[in-house]
Amino acid sequence: MTDPAAVDAPARRGRPGHDQQTVLRRAIDLFNEQGYDATSMGDLARELGLTKSAIYHHVPSKSHLLAEALDEALDELTAVVEEGVAPADGLGGEDQTAIARLRRTVRRSVEVLVAHQPAVTLLLRVRGNSDVEQAAQRRRRELDARLAGLVREAMAEGSLRDDVDPDVVSRLLFGMVNSLVEWYRPGGSADVELLSHAITAMAFDGLDAHQS
Amino acid sequence: MTDPAAVDAPARRGRPGHDQQTVLRRAIDLFNEQGYDATSMGDLARELGLTKSAIYHHVPSKSHLLAEALDEALDELTAVVEEGVAPADGLGGEDQTAIARLRRTVRRSVEVLVAHQPAVTLLLRVRGNSDVEQAAQRRRRELDARLAGLVREAMAEGSLRDDVDPDVVSRLLFGMVNSLVEWYRPGGSADVELLSHAITAMAFDGLDAHQS
Repeated sequence: MTDPAAVDAPARRGRPGHDQQTVLRRAIDLFNEQGYDATSMGDLARELGLTKSAIYHHVPSKSHLLAEALDEALDELTAVVEEGVAPADGLGGEDQTAIARLRRTVRRSVEVLVAHQPAVTLLLRVRGNSDVEQAAQRRRRELDARLAGLVREAMAEGSLRDDVDPDVVSRLLFGMVNSLVEWYRPGGSADVELLSHAITAMAFDGLDAHQS
Repeated sequence: MTDPAAVDAPARRGRPGHDQQTVLRRAIDLFNEQGYDATSMGDLARELGLTKSAIYHHVPSKSHLLAEALDEALDELTAVVEEGVAPADGLGGEDQTAIARLRRTVRRSVEVLVAHQPAVTLLLRVRGNSDVEQAAQRRRRELDARLAGLVREAMAEGSLRDDVDPDVVSRLLFGMVNSLVEWYRPGGSADVELLSHAITAMAFDGLDAHQS
């Protein structure tokens, strides 16, 4: 028997990104399936067909993997929120209104959730049980605050009804978007376009047939 | 030192419901904080100031506690859904329409989520890692199917817009309701009335200022 770590090493040097990504993807899936705290590096090694010592050739620690996964989700969501809060220079007047930017932010969030579903699922389940989780929660709270600010802006410009609390609206709106990760299955009947349409139709125009 | 189990036993016999409830509440909180799989009966015993053997005087097993917690949430939600799907005899014509029953189901779901937040939080995080979890998932799927049926009924009677998929609408609508458990804090600024208003306003009438 050869040592799997030794066998694996040349390939790893040849394709440095590939193996790291494989390990990260499997780790995220395992964390989502059995919970981060209940998953050991031994579980991950078994899943990958590596020995427990070999896994440490790929990643320094379990919390390192968690941090990478959470950063993936947070970086993507941050990009969406930044685009929504401070619009790109190229966009014209109509597209610069707060309501247009809010609608775009909802749509882009759906795209990120679908494209990065496992990492976002992990992010949404974080409980703050470690420094890594607490740092992620802080970043999430910042994003939530900026989204609430965008909702407030849309109310101030008169394009969103203002008989509802902007913080509550923001939480419910993105709570609805986030709920996707629990049931959306890639390749299922609900594609991204259809989801975006359903969410914006419900949230902005309402489901009531008598007003649409 | 006396054995905590021995000290506890008379009180337990005197108030049979009380101690069981205390153990269950603490268990639910611990499961939510650190994850069910990562929580041991030893953790729970420590939390309650009992020895590990004493805890088994109160409950036969960890999965027994999980089943009780999930049943609590599912029984409450089932009652809400049954009321919505098959309306009470006492209600008049207007209140019997599918849209009226759907609105009532949303409102009552919010009440259940607020009143049973810890148990519902646990239910929503279940991953199907054991027989108990799989049984809970089956019951949840049944509820989801009945809610989707109610949405379909409201579309058929012409009171809900039908350019959106009823299954997607149902999932998004109750996904929005369920998202409450992640951020609602009892005694916070958002009380149940306000939450119900915000959810029904957004979902049925829409946030757009120009049509409300």
